[in-house]
Amino acid sequence: VTTTTTYTVQGMTCGHCVASVTQEVGKVAGVIEVQVDLDSGAVSVTSDRALDRAVVKEAVEEAGYELVS
Amino acid sequence: VTTTTTYTVQGMTCGHCVASVTQEVGKVAGVIEVQVDLDSGAVSVTSDRALDRAVVKEAVEEAGYELVS
Repeated sequence: VTTTTTYTVQGMTCGHCVASVTQEVGKVAGVIEVQVDLDSGAVSVTSDRALDRAVVKEAVEEAGYELVS
Repeated sequence: VTTTTTYTVQGMTCGHCVASVTQEVGKVAGVIEVQVDLDSGAVSVTSDRALDRAVVKEAVEEAGYELVS
């Protein structure tokens, strides 16, 4: 069973930003896929387990951005 | 003798963009230093020889941006 959760990330302005967020969130244990919509800041994370929001937030911040919802 | 020429690059939106342009332009033969002002798009290139504008333009395009002046 996989779960997809969509978060909103603030501060991404270009493809490099998308790549950074994708890479950092992709490192979170259990994450299978990360899809980012640059315009809206929507980050959809598919995982094989329920993710701890704090861990996702930390990964987004590690990339240099802010998880706003 | 070193020469500094300031170009204007369009399309940079964040620090990653600045890093890409700095890296690509920095590879041009003769380039000693590249300084980028993200807000204005000003890219100051210091070199030990006169640079061919076409070569600088190519490096900027390689990074994914446009040399506009």
